[in-house]
Amino acid sequence: MQSFLFYNPTKLYFGKNQIEHLVPELQNFGMTVLLVYGGGSVKRTGLYDEIKSCLIRAHMRIFELSGIEPNPKLETIQEGIDLCKKEKIDVVLAVGGGSCIDAAKLICVAAKFDGDPWQIVMQKVEPKEALPLGVILTIAATGSEMNGTSVISRRNTKEKYSWSHILAYPKFSILDPTYTITVPKDQTVYGIVDMMTHIMEQYFHRTPHTPILDRMCEGLLQTIIETAPKVVKNLEDYQARETLMYAGTLALNRSLSTGADGDWAAHGIEHALSAYYDIPHGGGLAIIYPQWMKHVASFHPKRFSQFATRVFQIDSNHKTTEEVIHAGIEALQHFWCLLGAPSRLSDYKIDDTSIEKLVAHAMKRPLGKIKLLTAKDIRQILLSSL
Amino acid sequence: MQSFLFYNPTKLYFGKNQIEHLVPELQNFGMTVLLVYGGGSVKRTGLYDEIKSCLIRAHMRIFELSGIEPNPKLETIQEGIDLCKKEKIDVVLAVGGGSCIDAAKLICVAAKFDGDPWQIVMQKVEPKEALPLGVILTIAATGSEMNGTSVISRRNTKEKYSWSHILAYPKFSILDPTYTITVPKDQTVYGIVDMMTHIMEQYFHRTPHTPILDRMCEGLLQTIIETAPKVVKNLEDYQARETLMYAGTLALNRSLSTGADGDWAAHGIEHALSAYYDIPHGGGLAIIYPQWMKHVASFHPKRFSQFATRVFQIDSNHKTTEEVIHAGIEALQHFWCLLGAPSRLSDYKIDDTSIEKLVAHAMKRPLGKIKLLTAKDIRQILLSSL
Repeated sequence: MQSFLFYNPTKLYFGKNQIEHLVPELQNFGMTVLLVYGGGSVKRTGLYDEIKSCLIRAHMRIFELSGIEPNPKLETIQEGIDLCKKEKIDVVLAVGGGSCIDAAKLICVAAKFDGDPWQIVMQKVEPKEALPLGVILTIAATGSEMNGTSVISRRNTKEKYSWSHILAYPKFSILDPTYTITVPKDQTVYGIVDMMTHIMEQYFHRTPHTPILDRMCEGLLQTIIETAPKVVKNLEDYQARETLMYAGTLALNRSLSTGADGDWAAHGIEHALSAYYDIPHGGGLAIIYPQWMKHVASFHPKRFSQFATRVFQIDSNHKTTEEVIHAGIEALQHFWCLLGAPSRLSDYKIDDTSIEKLVAHAMKRPLGKIKLLTAKDIRQILLSSL
Repeated sequence: MQSFLFYNPTKLYFGKNQIEHLVPELQNFGMTVLLVYGGGSVKRTGLYDEIKSCLIRAHMRIFELSGIEPNPKLETIQEGIDLCKKEKIDVVLAVGGGSCIDAAKLICVAAKFDGDPWQIVMQKVEPKEALPLGVILTIAATGSEMNGTSVISRRNTKEKYSWSHILAYPKFSILDPTYTITVPKDQTVYGIVDMMTHIMEQYFHRTPHTPILDRMCEGLLQTIIETAPKVVKNLEDYQARETLMYAGTLALNRSLSTGADGDWAAHGIEHALSAYYDIPHGGGLAIIYPQWMKHVASFHPKRFSQFATRVFQIDSNHKTTEEVIHAGIEALQHFWCLLGAPSRLSDYKIDDTSIEKLVAHAMKRPLGKIKLLTAKDIRQILLSSL
């Protein structure tokens, strides 16, 4: 293990009817709220009306920023920042999934900053203060509801990068699994892939002696592997939705990265991919991640064989380490395939024409701890994903 | 799962040399500090001198309360409360294990309360504010370094009870495994038993459908079972000490009790025992816990057999559920016995003369979720522990 600081100040309200805590929590910060949400789903499900009537009954002043897109764009977020400054917003409430929460995080931090918000994303400036953020989560996937990380895209330059700051942790997050029942199958599967890769990105590292983290990651992956098929079979299985929702949060609330330095290279490559093609993050990961595994496994075979035997119960008898590793990766691919996730770039009609642009985007930050990736590595991973 | 609120605002600094964060963290709250510690061990190891010189170099005003005993007593704590009020202490720093931290928690809350501090322990009053608390942990056991719980004894009435409050969470805790290298074998073993029972008290519950918590508990127990013999064999094994220290914190930072209602009856009985006989908490638990298991297992056999098969890898083939459960409890007893923990009350020369007093103490609060214990149950568990 390495030295670490663990500090997660988000209050997590989990379970049915936890929305009863919304107004008291918001009013800790003031009476003027900016509601940040995406497209029509929160209106279709009735959640939008429920929240609005809570806030109106509490006599709160409400402003709205709707239309946050998947892979949220700086251009949309700028409207929210301007609104916060103009209307003296006290607290921001994100209602939705990772895109809404990530957008709201940048709104909160940039509302207290006089300068180009992209500088915050590129980590060129150190934020000093932020508006408080509350979250109502509607999809199990991101983990953004209990961490300080946000991923932002810029439409005109086709860029997509993540940034993190302690000021960007939500003050509170309300997780009612009921809200995830209406998430359609494809989005549900992308969420499952997303949370599984979050765990694996932290699991695959070179830090010696991390037995506690290992078992936490393995146990959480096993639970998701047991649970995901139930949800895909019956989208209204509340107990399974509940398990997935909590798993998604635990996957990225930093408790799995205490004292180890996770790889995160596949995420970097996927960010380039979805920046350029605007494909779903979970879909991109389902394609890239296994190819990344195959490409780097030989640089830390012990870790990849432990993954195979402990997560997918690959029997290692009469097998070489390479065979065990291969069987583990195959099992993961097979599992995602059964859920209905994409497995090749061609599933999104993506060919090799823009590969050099993707490589250049991905190379803007150092990528990889199992193996520090070169341009050649990234190119090979992308080519093997076609 | 049940609905829950998870909120843990303690900053955890973990690893070698994390004491470098001490002064900046303390100075977030002021310049006048009350140092709370136990007997001679922090002086013998040099930690006391190291802390003092940090504080002196930073020109802090230092007051001290030493002599916090195991099973900390209200009478000693009262001195600390008086000191805080008289000297206008800004921040309290506990240096030690669970006893010091628990004592410091009551000092922090009672320093801002005009009334009998025992009312706080008995949860008759609702604290409104508290002095901030910092912790330097020197023994892996309690989990008190990252929660709001404290266990306090009263000498004159031979009482011992736990209380919890969000205001009692430490603001920060410094966990440097180096400080635990000098913990003698018996105290090390008591700490191991203590953290294991903390996990099991949360694992044994009647809440349906808790697959994530189950695997987190089982994984942490397995890791402790692998690690503890290494430490007992070589007290200076840094890596093993590191694992135990982090395991003890995770065992009771509330992440294992999200959405489930743990049993905690054995702790209630042990508190009666150590209130009356002043024996080490971990020693008392090693005796009481397996007897509690045997007494209640038939009320939730599925849970106890899952414990046996997943934690101790008991092979369930050709065995009845009862045989699997029995083998699991035997494996736990055997494991603790090999570490050198006590197994009978007679190891502390305790006989049955005061059993009715212990039963009366334990019955003052409702005990048990697997089975709500009656006086008869508690008497039987104690008799079978003789």
